[in-house]
Formats: sequence, structure tokens, C-alpha cells
Amino acid sequence: MPASDAVVQQEQPWNRQRLRSTNERLLLDRLRSGGAASRAQLARETGLSKPTVSSALAALETAGLVHEVGTLAPQRGRTAVLYAPDPAAGYALGIDVGRSWLRVAVADLDGTVVARSDVRNRARSSGAMADLVVATARQVVTGSGVAADGVVHAVVGTPGVYDERQRRVRFAMHLPGWGRAGLFDRMREELGVPLEVHNDANLAALGEYTYGVGAGSRLFAYILIGTGLGMGVVSEGRLFTGAHGLAGEIGFLPWPGQQKPERLEDAVSGVAVVEAARRFGMNGQLTAKAVFDAARQGNDAAVKAVRLEGERIAHTVAAAAAVLDPDLVVLGGGVGHSVDLLLRPVRDRLRSLTPLRPKVVPSRLGEDAVLLGAVATALGTARNVVFERRSAAP
Amino acid sequence: MPASDAVVQQEQPWNRQRLRSTNERLLLDRLRSGGAASRAQLARETGLSKPTVSSALAALETAGLVHEVGTLAPQRGRTAVLYAPDPAAGYALGIDVGRSWLRVAVADLDGTVVARSDVRNRARSSGAMADLVVATARQVVTGSGVAADGVVHAVVGTPGVYDERQRRVRFAMHLPGWGRAGLFDRMREELGVPLEVHNDANLAALGEYTYGVGAGSRLFAYILIGTGLGMGVVSEGRLFTGAHGLAGEIGFLPWPGQQKPERLEDAVSGVAVVEAARRFGMNGQLTAKAVFDAARQGNDAAVKAVRLEGERIAHTVAAAAAVLDPDLVVLGGGVGHSVDLLLRPVRDRLRSLTPLRPKVVPSRLGEDAVLLGAVATALGTARNVVFERRSAAP
Repeated sequence: MPASDAVVQQEQPWNRQRLRSTNERLLLDRLRSGGAASRAQLARETGLSKPTVSSALAALETAGLVHEVGTLAPQRGRTAVLYAPDPAAGYALGIDVGRSWLRVAVADLDGTVVARSDVRNRARSSGAMADLVVATARQVVTGSGVAADGVVHAVVGTPGVYDERQRRVRFAMHLPGWGRAGLFDRMREELGVPLEVHNDANLAALGEYTYGVGAGSRLFAYILIGTGLGMGVVSEGRLFTGAHGLAGEIGFLPWPGQQKPERLEDAVSGVAVVEAARRFGMNGQLTAKAVFDAARQGNDAAVKAVRLEGERIAHTVAAAAAVLDPDLVVLGGGVGHSVDLLLRPVRDRLRSLTPLRPKVVPSRLGEDAVLLGAVATALGTARNVVFERRSAAP
Repeated sequence: MPASDAVVQQEQPWNRQRLRSTNERLLLDRLRSGGAASRAQLARETGLSKPTVSSALAALETAGLVHEVGTLAPQRGRTAVLYAPDPAAGYALGIDVGRSWLRVAVADLDGTVVARSDVRNRARSSGAMADLVVATARQVVTGSGVAADGVVHAVVGTPGVYDERQRRVRFAMHLPGWGRAGLFDRMREELGVPLEVHNDANLAALGEYTYGVGAGSRLFAYILIGTGLGMGVVSEGRLFTGAHGLAGEIGFLPWPGQQKPERLEDAVSGVAVVEAARRFGMNGQLTAKAVFDAARQGNDAAVKAVRLEGERIAHTVAAAAAVLDPDLVVLGGGVGHSVDLLLRPVRDRLRSLTPLRPKVVPSRLGEDAVLLGAVATALGTARNVVFERRSAAP
């Protein structure tokens, strides 16, 4: 189609091609959200005529967007063919860059993860980390059997805040050099896929809203506790990002007991749990997980360290409650993983801190929240891109 | 009009009466926002035909919603009559209930305050306070010369949060008994006016957004520092109230230097300034204002008390910045009034507290912010009510 036609198409809402495309989109969205359906069912539910449904389905099938998935044989009447979106029409890539782990997943358009890799992040420089991201993503895609050009969109979750203008990350304290300009451009280029970058806690919040305990909440805050500390806020289904995308940077919260220039992030992170456990008398090569395991078995020093951690997290919850008034606070991330142990000290401390006590629950997605949030976000774009591309093809 | 007709009218968008009403509304809104205009000008700007404009203006004039305000004699062509909304078509009542002051204002539909009273709140009980509100409001209305039934809507600003279901205020710590059920019902009844209740800091934020320094901000936080401590958040022009209307209840923020069970509200309020000044060596019958005045004259104890106050406010700003990421923070209220003295310690402390430093500026409306926010909010409803009433009249 010549470019001039495309312009006309945009300006004429009654344009026939455009109308057809709108009907196709309507049917595809219905099939995506409501499950496989027959022509008759689709006509009934959308209000489109049966001939319109038939021709739109035929166009969608030709474009590879929809396929037959079976038949429905009712007790009376004719057997009907059931249609569903073809999940293999395109793929989305989700990437979670953390200091300790790099996680990559490829999902089909249904949102089913078809391949995934979790690798230790042993990179010593930001360049090596970018290389690791690219190599792991390539390997996951290859391993999945998906053609390289089948992946249409990628989303990366990272600590810190992505500056769209300078195309670099800011405030990623625990990933040295990660704020360097050009890093994401390089990954984009080497992967050959459009690549969006988002704050990890924001993606985790969206993940938990889409697949986890956040569903249906009016205003919920997801607190990501791991190497760093972050918060994602979802208000009426949409991410609340503030005036410059910095909302939820609670690592910068001032906090009681602060020993300057310590930041709350450093007082609540996994490293802080280990340090506290040492201070209370634990020895040896410790990790946050080891401290939580010891606390579970009643080790006194570990129990104290976990309680201190809970009290500090309670301050974060109290601050979020006073400023935002969430109806739900989800604790997640590497340390959030041991929330079963933290919930009681968090709730106890909250009671003495503030009369504003939102419901505090553990993440359902655990350490997968960022990755699944990245996949969900990439999917949203990938579905649009695939539809636009395929329905525009001759 | 019989009730059944009214129902039909709602269901038929093409109904002639309704269409007429829509055109009238359009013209009235244009006159309200764009200033006085002639028929020809209105026809040009709205796209309505001149006969439609003429008959709609005639109807608006008959209903007392619009009046002639002069003529426009162009260099060439005929002299044209200029129309404007009749500001006297109805009035709105704004009420600010604070522990020290009660402020009441009546404004016409243009938003011009036509009468106002500020009285010391010396009420010893919540019942006496309700009586004072009613008596002062009546006196202001009488004094303004506005007929009692000319006031069509009232908005009250109060500390705490109004619970719509229980029709009572919660968390109004500094107004003893003010949470009692039935108080606002009584005021409503005795005033004979529909009466909405809102959090004072929220109204101040709206006031500052409508008439003050907040205009055009993407996300701004108004911190109200007076007897209590509150915050109102305006995000993209709309109040951000959280899941239960409790967003911005920063009096409950945990804070560094906290001496249990002290609340941040009590550490930052006017009373805290006086207490700090005493601790630093000031004597006599002190008020917050006296401390600020002394600081202005270089009194050492007063300067120290003001600096401490500034540091504590900085913690509030830092917490709001980490959670919300505002592009603007406005300091207002009784203590905010002396913001010229506070700005430097607030900014100094912020620099050492956090890399997230939103612009911090004084309120332009000062102690009038809550009252003007109440008036602005009441006006929004009053304009609708007056239009509906008068244009529906035979």
C-alpha cells in the first residue's frame, strides 16, 4: 500500500480497510480474553453479523493470527469450529537484570513461557554484564526453537530509573558502571529487537498485579527487597510513576535509627541481614538465605537479625501508608522470599508505629515477579506489533 | 414535567430539550472561561449557528444565568452586545475548620469572595464548634446580603479524613470530640445547604493548584504545617487520595529522632516549634509566630528552633520525594507562613538526606489555601446545581 493511502486511512474513520481491521482486532481481543469460540458465539457476543465474523476470521487465519483449535458438538444443532489466537504468531522477551541473578524468558503471545534461563550474574563490569544479557537472551531464544525474527519485543527490568532522553539508567547503586551511556543501545543493536527498559520494582508490581496477589487492588504497593530496595505502585490498574519516573525509590527514604550516611536501602537489603546476624553473633560464610534458614531453626542471632529486618521493613510500609494509603502491600524479592518469617515482626512493629496499617502479604510470584512483569509488559506491545504487521501484510 | 418524561429525556440523547440544554451549557462554559463575548464571537468560537446562539442566550438570560455587561463598538460594523455569566445566579460557601481559627467565605459564581469572616476558634467542645461553624456561616451569609437560599453548596475543610459511610471525621487528633457521629448532619440541617466535607490539606492543595503556585505542575505535594501536619497530592490536575482517602496523612510518618510515642505531626507542628524554642532557652508566653519573629531578629534560641523545624520538615519532603516523586513541594499553613525562614534549613537538610530533591516553594495563598480550596471545590458543584435548577425551570 502506498504511503499516501496509509495517511488517508488514518484520517477517514469510515475507511473500509480500517473498519475491517477494527473488527478483526475486536475478535482477536475477544478470543484472547474470553477463550476459544465459534463463529456463532463470536457473532452473538460482539454484535457483528455472521458474514462479517466469517470474513474477519478468515482474514485473521490467513494472516496467521488465529487458528482452529477444535470443534464444538452441541447436543442439538451443527458441529461448530472453535477458533483461538495462534500463540506462535510472535514472541516476547522478558529480562530481569539483578546484581546476583540474570533471568531471561521467552513467552508466546498467550503469555506461556516457552523457554527460560536463570544465570548467576558474575560479570565484573557493566560491559561484561551487557554481554551476558545478550548472550543469555540469544541462547534462550535459540533453545526455545523460536526463529530469531519471531521475537518482536523485549523488556528489561533493572534497578534504578531509566532516563529515556539520555538512554541510560540512573540510581542503580548496586550495579557499578551500569549507568554508563550506550549500554542499552548496544544490547538493542546486538539483539536486533526493540527493547524497553523499566525499573525492576515497577515491573514486579505489574507482574504481581497481572499474575499474582495484586489483582483487583485499588492501590497497591509492591516492595522489592533484595540486593537493593524498591517499590512499585499500581493505582487503579496503572503504574504510578511520579513526575520523573522516580516514584517508589524508597531506598532513599530517611529512616529512624539511620547512621549517616547509611541509606535505608543498605539497612534493609540482604547484605544488611547478614551484617546484623554477624553483629548478633553468627559466624561463617553467611548469606541472607542462610540467616533466614537459621532463624527458621531457632538460632538466636538469626532470629534477632530477622526481627530487626522486619522492623525496618515496617518503617517502609508505614511511610508508604502515610503518603499513599494503599489497600495492599506486597513484600517480594530475594529477601521478601522469606516473608513467612518477616510478616510477624513487620506487623508487630507496624502496630506500634502507626494507626494506618494496610494489609501486608507475601508476593505470590516470589523471585519471578520482575521477570514476569517484564514478560507481561513486553507482551502488551508484542501483541499490538504482531497484529499491525500481519494484518497490514498483503 | 411529569417524572416519566424526565426518564425519557435521559434515555434519548437526541431529545430537543436536552440538546438545547447542551448548547446553553456550552455557551455558559465558554463565557465563564473565556470572558464576556458577543453573539457573533460565540457563534464563531463554538461552531453553533447565530440563531442557535441567540435563542440559547435568550434562554440563559431569562433563567438569570447570563446578563448583558456592555457593548462592543468595533471600528467597522455594528455595535454588539456583550454577554457574561451572571455571578449572582448562585453562591458557594467555603469553610475552614482549624484548631485555632475558623474561616468562612461566600463567593459568587465567578469565584469572587463577597463576604468573609475569620474568627478565633475558642470552642471547648465539638458541639460548641459545630455551633460556631453554623453561627459564623449564617452571619457571613447575612452580612453579604445574599439571600439565604442563594447559597447552593458548601464545602468544609477539616483535619482528619471524612468517612462518607459513617458520616463522621476520623484522625482529627487536634480537635477533641470532632470525630463524633452526627456533627456534620447537624451542621447540614441547621445551615439548610448541601455540605461536603474534605481533608484540609487536600483542599489546600486544590486551592494552591487552582489559584496559587501549583498551576501546571504534573505532580505536586502541598504540605500543610500548622496545628497539625497534612499533605495533599495533586496528580495531573486531580486529587490523589489513595485507597481509602488517607493518602497524605503524613502526621503518621515514622521519623528519625522520634521519641516514642511522639508522632511526626507533634514534632513539626506550631506547638513543637514553641517547645523547641523553650528548650533552647526562650522564655515567656510564646507562640509559633513569636518564635519565628524572634528568629528573624537573630535570637539564638529561636534560630535554633526554626532550624530544627526545618530539618524535620525536610524529612517529610524527603519521604514524599522517595515515595511520590513530585516535581513541586509547596509548604503552607500557619507555620508554612514563615517559610522564608524555613526554606534554607529545609533545603540544606534535604541535600544531606537524599539525592531526590524536588523544588520546594512557599504557598502563595498562605493561610487562605484551605478556605480558597473549599470555595473552589464548592463552586464546581454550585455552578452545576445552579445551571440544572435554573435551566430546568419553566
